[in-house]
Amino acid sequence: MRFEVWAPKAQESVVLRLDGEDMAMRPDPAGDGWWAVEAPAAAGSRYGYALDGGPVLPDPRSRRQPEGPDGLSAVVGPDAYERRVPWAGRALPGAVLYELHVGTFTREGTLDAAAAQLDAVAELGVTHVELMPLCPFPGRHGWGYEGVSLWAVHEPYGGPAALTRFVDAAHERDLGVVLDVVHNHLGPSGNYLPQFGPYFTDTHHTPWGAAVNLDAPGSDEVCAFLLGSALAWLRDFGLDGLRLDAVHALADTRALTFLEELSAEVDLLGAETGRPLFLIAESDLCDPRTTTPRPLGGLGLHAQWNDDFHHALHTALTGESQGYYEDFARAPIAALAKTLTRVFFHDGTYSTFRGRTHGRPVDRTRTPAHRFLGYAQTHDQIGNRAQGDRLSATLPPGLLACAAALVLTGPHTPMLFMGEEWGATTPWQFFTDHTDPELARAVRDGRRREFAAHGWAAEDIPDPQDPATRERSCLDRSERDEEPHARLLAWYRALIALRADQPDLSDPDLAAVAVAFDEAERWLTFRRGELRIAVNLSDAPRDIPLGRGAPHRVLASWEEVSPPDPTGVLRLPASCAVILTGA
Amino acid sequence: MRFEVWAPKAQESVVLRLDGEDMAMRPDPAGDGWWAVEAPAAAGSRYGYALDGGPVLPDPRSRRQPEGPDGLSAVVGPDAYERRVPWAGRALPGAVLYELHVGTFTREGTLDAAAAQLDAVAELGVTHVELMPLCPFPGRHGWGYEGVSLWAVHEPYGGPAALTRFVDAAHERDLGVVLDVVHNHLGPSGNYLPQFGPYFTDTHHTPWGAAVNLDAPGSDEVCAFLLGSALAWLRDFGLDGLRLDAVHALADTRALTFLEELSAEVDLLGAETGRPLFLIAESDLCDPRTTTPRPLGGLGLHAQWNDDFHHALHTALTGESQGYYEDFARAPIAALAKTLTRVFFHDGTYSTFRGRTHGRPVDRTRTPAHRFLGYAQTHDQIGNRAQGDRLSATLPPGLLACAAALVLTGPHTPMLFMGEEWGATTPWQFFTDHTDPELARAVRDGRRREFAAHGWAAEDIPDPQDPATRERSCLDRSERDEEPHARLLAWYRALIALRADQPDLSDPDLAAVAVAFDEAERWLTFRRGELRIAVNLSDAPRDIPLGRGAPHRVLASWEEVSPPDPTGVLRLPASCAVILTGA
Repeated sequence: MRFEVWAPKAQESVVLRLDGEDMAMRPDPAGDGWWAVEAPAAAGSRYGYALDGGPVLPDPRSRRQPEGPDGLSAVVGPDAYERRVPWAGRALPGAVLYELHVGTFTREGTLDAAAAQLDAVAELGVTHVELMPLCPFPGRHGWGYEGVSLWAVHEPYGGPAALTRFVDAAHERDLGVVLDVVHNHLGPSGNYLPQFGPYFTDTHHTPWGAAVNLDAPGSDEVCAFLLGSALAWLRDFGLDGLRLDAVHALADTRALTFLEELSAEVDLLGAETGRPLFLIAESDLCDPRTTTPRPLGGLGLHAQWNDDFHHALHTALTGESQGYYEDFARAPIAALAKTLTRVFFHDGTYSTFRGRTHGRPVDRTRTPAHRFLGYAQTHDQIGNRAQGDRLSATLPPGLLACAAALVLTGPHTPMLFMGEEWGATTPWQFFTDHTDPELARAVRDGRRREFAAHGWAAEDIPDPQDPATRERSCLDRSERDEEPHARLLAWYRALIALRADQPDLSDPDLAAVAVAFDEAERWLTFRRGELRIAVNLSDAPRDIPLGRGAPHRVLASWEEVSPPDPTGVLRLPASCAVILTGA
Repeated sequence: MRFEVWAPKAQESVVLRLDGEDMAMRPDPAGDGWWAVEAPAAAGSRYGYALDGGPVLPDPRSRRQPEGPDGLSAVVGPDAYERRVPWAGRALPGAVLYELHVGTFTREGTLDAAAAQLDAVAELGVTHVELMPLCPFPGRHGWGYEGVSLWAVHEPYGGPAALTRFVDAAHERDLGVVLDVVHNHLGPSGNYLPQFGPYFTDTHHTPWGAAVNLDAPGSDEVCAFLLGSALAWLRDFGLDGLRLDAVHALADTRALTFLEELSAEVDLLGAETGRPLFLIAESDLCDPRTTTPRPLGGLGLHAQWNDDFHHALHTALTGESQGYYEDFARAPIAALAKTLTRVFFHDGTYSTFRGRTHGRPVDRTRTPAHRFLGYAQTHDQIGNRAQGDRLSATLPPGLLACAAALVLTGPHTPMLFMGEEWGATTPWQFFTDHTDPELARAVRDGRRREFAAHGWAAEDIPDPQDPATRERSCLDRSERDEEPHARLLAWYRALIALRADQPDLSDPDLAAVAVAFDEAERWLTFRRGELRIAVNLSDAPRDIPLGRGAPHRVLASWEEVSPPDPTGVLRLPASCAVILTGA
């Protein structure tokens, strides 16, 4: 088999160590920094590269790291990617996503254990699971955003073959699989790439230090590395889409940026294979261009997370107003109404948190609603809280039901965070398993310092390195059958089924979403075609004027609700949501 | 009159010092960092602001700095902007620009002295003069890219009233006036802005250090400051366009960038006043989006300098191959042909100089050619050479004539650098007049170090601080009447007249520019409608096969040339250009 590595930093030699034997590699005559050698190897063979007589390092394009990021790479045979289940795919329009962290979805924390729980996910009615990052990182447990081997699967999760099995299990249940991939930084721990080539650049700075090199000298191969990794997930493992972490941190001044190139490549692969592949950006920019098609001057990503909708919903539900919630909290119901109809709250408005004007308007008349993901909770919005508490920790079930209604009947493509569907009582906290004691201490202290600035005592902040922190974050499925969880789960199921049954609910026309609300009385209602959704977020019953001729038939309701009276007034109990139809 | 200043850095107080008297200013109750006071003042009144008891600083929005950037500001009355000459304006399509540095265009180095020489510029036939930067900078002489008061005119040039007189003089001769403005950095010397507010940010880095703050906290007012300055030039002084220095260095991650906002504001001002205002970017990005209209996802700038055309032409003429010329020099005639038809040489091709793939293709079928400026020489391309030597220092007149033909009959909007039209023998060197001895030494040493790296001896690099360096760079009009200068000047005049007379020469259709060339024989020919242009860049006569039915009538020719023979072969003397027509 042919071993190849891009190692322009090597001055004199690159040696392949394969199952204990050393073999000199030959530089590519083109002088492009590639080195290669033919050597006999089998699946499971351990190998690595030594540059200029240095230590043996794992392959940057390693497909398996059996001993973790610091160990040797392993050869993976084609059977590791062999899927048994043919699947036509499911497109993003009409999708409902389910964000899932393999390490805490089950106590075992493996892909196989997660696959064994997919029946319940399928029964919930969602269309895709969105897996949090799977690339190898130091230690056994972690969120996964510190991955280093962008072509491999974390071995404690089961490695590449387990991912193939998981994809099969999902497809068997008509569930698509989306993977969260991190291109904006690597490591810090176990990151050997800088020893191979100019993977990073000081030209730009990011929250994680030196930026991934997308536009400085040598960046062509770095872009090819990232592109290749992204396409490998879709092609080799049969994944159906990717979630791109923090695309705003991909500093790239080129005329043709990495993101645009990536979206073009993914569209091409989709066209070639007849699969509805898609890319979902996490973006802090409130920039419609992120999801605008390439021919119209956009980056051509297929969707993006809409944190503005989350922030409006979160402040409307909780009354919280710290940090980036400040602008939303001034009139949260109005903010919620704005994000339901105009997507971005910050569409050229002043952002106190950023100290400047932020965002620009989405063209509602031309932009399909499904390009924006809407959610009440995500790994970030839960896990980045001091104690990783979910909404269910503080809100009454009725408000959780309202949140579900707003997410699942609104114009956004809905996304849930695992366990949300039954109001899981387990928190989802920040946990790490750094093997480097220095880094472990820095992470623990950094976390405490961060929240001390917001008035938290150190002892109230869970220790990320304590194994109990991860264990505490594992879902407890035994509570699903208890009240109020069972009732909430039935409500989620009913709403998701409604979304599938009622085409009005996946109407892409943002301009057709007519909203009315009362900030003081804390109710909000909006139209989706023949349907009318009403939520009462207050702690008292409210009379909501829907107008004469308002829809009368109750399709779904959290509490017993009477149809609107002849003048069109709907009396809604406290913390209650209802879906009415005129059809 | 009302004095206002944005000074969010002031904690306690801002004091207006006006003609020696101190007056306390009041902070705006909105808490936005603005301070104001009403005070009696007249044109010429000197004033400045003291923050928190500190030294009196010039006004960031000063319209006049009689004693230079470090002195007090002066009140300017409305009569300083009163123009006598009404002018309808001239649009960019069909324009021929003439880049002019006020400090060396005449030995006096003032706007009034420059205005006195405008008859010759008008007689040349160009449509616009493009003035190098006019904002105040330390000392008397300099290129002007180290300006600090972005709302004022360098006093040694004559100050604001002199600019008004210059604009009148130009408009009187049917010449538009474009100004080179620098938004990407200020100073370094005499830059007091950081004492007032967050004008700069460490979030991004530029070749000049901290970036102008376009997207970090507090940036709204910084953008307003830059926008206001740009609009003031167009509105108050009646300028017809702006050249935006190095827009690639404007780090701006916002969804609505400064450049897009600027182009929208300028279009609005143009629409409101009925004037064909335009913006011309200097950009290193080879990105069509720079000049793509805003509704199509672009920045909406009206044109950009096309350095790729320059580099192709320069290497074809000189054979130079160092630095960024390397990729062009491999096949310079082919590179020239590519830029004549496809604008960017680097349109997704590998740039050795940058160590990566660069640029993206211009859509030739939809992009009017006039959006790209073409030139054989500019202040940068001459002045950034070790000795500031023009093409005329090394090339025979015939090659200068070929360069002129390629610029003035090609699809680009042509631009000349002052003196080019007669092949001026005066160099145009890098000169400064820093008053800070530390900075003066750093600039001198930096310049020598830069060129030492390319094998230049220190004594061969002109001292930027030596007054003789600037004097050497002043045009010498006495040589215009001598040969070969007079003949070249007549050739430039003839070509510019031809461009005005022949609509084919300003045809915006890039796709219609059909080019043929022979790299080894060093000739190139291209079609513009009924016209055919042919140049022979070699030092021997060439037989150029134009094809049967090729245009026969010689419209203009550098040497005596016979029409093509019956088989369509044109015999062209060495270093010669000809324009043929079939009409």
